[in-house]
Amino acid sequence: MDYIAQFLQQMGEQLRLPVTFVVIEFVGTVAFAISGIRLASAKNFDWFGAYIVGMATAIGGGTIRDIMLGLSPFWMTNTLYLWCCAFAMVCVALMRRHLVRRKDTLLFIFDTIGLALFNLIGVEKTLNMGFPVWCAIIMGCITGAGGGVLRDVFINEIPLIFRKEIYALACILGGVVYVFGLYVGLNTEATAALSCIIVIAIRCLAEIYHWHLPVMKAED
Amino acid sequence: MDYIAQFLQQMGEQLRLPVTFVVIEFVGTVAFAISGIRLASAKNFDWFGAYIVGMATAIGGGTIRDIMLGLSPFWMTNTLYLWCCAFAMVCVALMRRHLVRRKDTLLFIFDTIGLALFNLIGVEKTLNMGFPVWCAIIMGCITGAGGGVLRDVFINEIPLIFRKEIYALACILGGVVYVFGLYVGLNTEATAALSCIIVIAIRCLAEIYHWHLPVMKAED
Amino acid sequence: MDYIAQFLQQMGEQLRLPVTFVVIEFVGTVAFAISGIRLASAKNFDWFGAYIVGMATAIGGGTIRDIMLGLSPFWMTNTLYLWCCAFAMVCVALMRRHLVRRKDTLLFIFDTIGLALFNLIGVEKTLNMGFPVWCAIIMGCITGAGGGVLRDVFINEIPLIFRKEIYALACILGGVVYVFGLYVGLNTEATAALSCIIVIAIRCLAEIYHWHLPVMKAED
Repeated sequence: MDYIAQFLQQMGEQLRLPVTFVVIEFVGTVAFAISGIRLASAKNFDWFGAYIVGMATAIGGGTIRDIMLGLSPFWMTNTLYLWCCAFAMVCVALMRRHLVRRKDTLLFIFDTIGLALFNLIGVEKTLNMGFPVWCAIIMGCITGAGGGVLRDVFINEIPLIFRKEIYALACILGGVVYVFGLYVGLNTEATAALSCIIVIAIRCLAEIYHWHLPVMKAED
Repeated sequence: MDYIAQFLQQMGEQLRLPVTFVVIEFVGTVAFAISGIRLASAKNFDWFGAYIVGMATAIGGGTIRDIMLGLSPFWMTNTLYLWCCAFAMVCVALMRRHLVRRKDTLLFIFDTIGLALFNLIGVEKTLNMGFPVWCAIIMGCITGAGGGVLRDVFINEIPLIFRKEIYALACILGGVVYVFGLYVGLNTEATAALSCIIVIAIRCLAEIYHWHLPVMKAED
Repeated sequence: MDYIAQFLQQMGEQLRLPVTFVVIEFVGTVAFAISGIRLASAKNFDWFGAYIVGMATAIGGGTIRDIMLGLSPFWMTNTLYLWCCAFAMVCVALMRRHLVRRKDTLLFIFDTIGLALFNLIGVEKTLNMGFPVWCAIIMGCITGAGGGVLRDVFINEIPLIFRKEIYALACILGGVVYVFGLYVGLNTEATAALSCIIVIAIRCLAEIYHWHLPVMKAED
């Protein structure tokens, strides 16, 4: 356990995030990867294909963000994301033998926590590069939701977030709260926590009360 | 109106384009966004999804071009493209109540004018970066046609320009005329105008006379 | 013939590869392009669409790799890839009149040789940029297999390599052999040749003995 603590510390320094965030990031990465692997397996992908779709779901959003910011994708210097996805493969393979329903709620919670943090990392990283705040909010949204879009392109489906879920909107609101908090001079940690709570709350409420955005109608 | 003129002037300086071009660019962006939003709405996308598909159609080509050129995407420092797409959303929502047929002709003209200008911007920007002329022509084509390909990937259809329309070919011919005009020492503005006229003329003629490229046949 | 030899020499110097490799690269590019053009023609793409899908198949993997490495795509300063794809178009148009079966075996061999070399180029280029070895192996795999994924997205199919073929796995093993060979101090040329042989052998054996990866099963 001592080794793990030391490792998390190092990761935190490397990613410039507190240790709590590092743990949350791994949980989020695994949850995102599991969502990709499950959808891939429903389409009879082989193990390799499922692994790639899991990776794309977990790191796709951050990869698109980094390329747009002119950086090398974040996962290219850190094996951890590969291991997270391998762990997700094991989880999916084992989950078959257990009750699916309970796991789904747990997975939804992990996925939502991951979304909130990924969004925050995207906003923060873009602000640090000197881009305008509205651009940072968009990049947070791409970080959180881009992986899911890539997953749906790979499994040849219309991206889910374009039709059904309150997903990207939660990211945008969380991003707005974060940059507004920084603007009015709130403490950074407190603002970050508030932003995450907003994202998680909106997504949970949307799930419980079946909130949907109205469908766009063009022709009568 | 004075404010708008001043604003367009500033935009022109920022984009290094004459004021007329700035106006055309906005018209083109709105027309591209409308084409994305209408196709998204035909697939029951929600408002958010339709907005994203509209954005992808309008700025996707230029984004792919900028990433290939090693630049940050052009829209990341300018909110105007977001507003153009929001305006396009309003247009589509209102268009339902009017005659569709007449609007379609108007939209086709706007879309074609936008295509001609986007192509020109792509060629010009790539030449300025020091790439070879043939590469600039390809980048013009990607700027004009890339957004439509991204749109069709998002709505899970085979890209339209690969099967039906004389679209990219018009871009290529417009690009060839532009670089040839510069090569023989013609006036830049005159060459740019000629290039746009070529693109618009080819696309209009193709539409009127139902020109299609032959289908590629591999197996008998 | 003297002109061709001189040209290949120059290409080799430009690409920092021995002349044999340059020849193999062109053969591989043509084989990849043919696979894209044939699948596009099966979906009634027009000539332009088939050409673009052929290009995407041939250069898509290397383009994704270069963008991730922060470089301009390799084909943007060299017209040769455009000509390779044009040559592939002619091949497909002519192949219709000949026996399809024999050509397919030849094509499979060319495609496999191309895969082995593309993989090697990807690994080598990434190592030269100073990224870790595991990242280089992934980039080799993306160089070899990314074009096929892009092709399948464009023709609106689930990427073949996620479901059926031992393709990316051959790349990964070839990459592991290459970096291991360099690590233990083997001669570079010998290691490169060994890596290519491994990729070709695995893919041929997989084809002959119908090896498949097991399908990922999530729900019972």
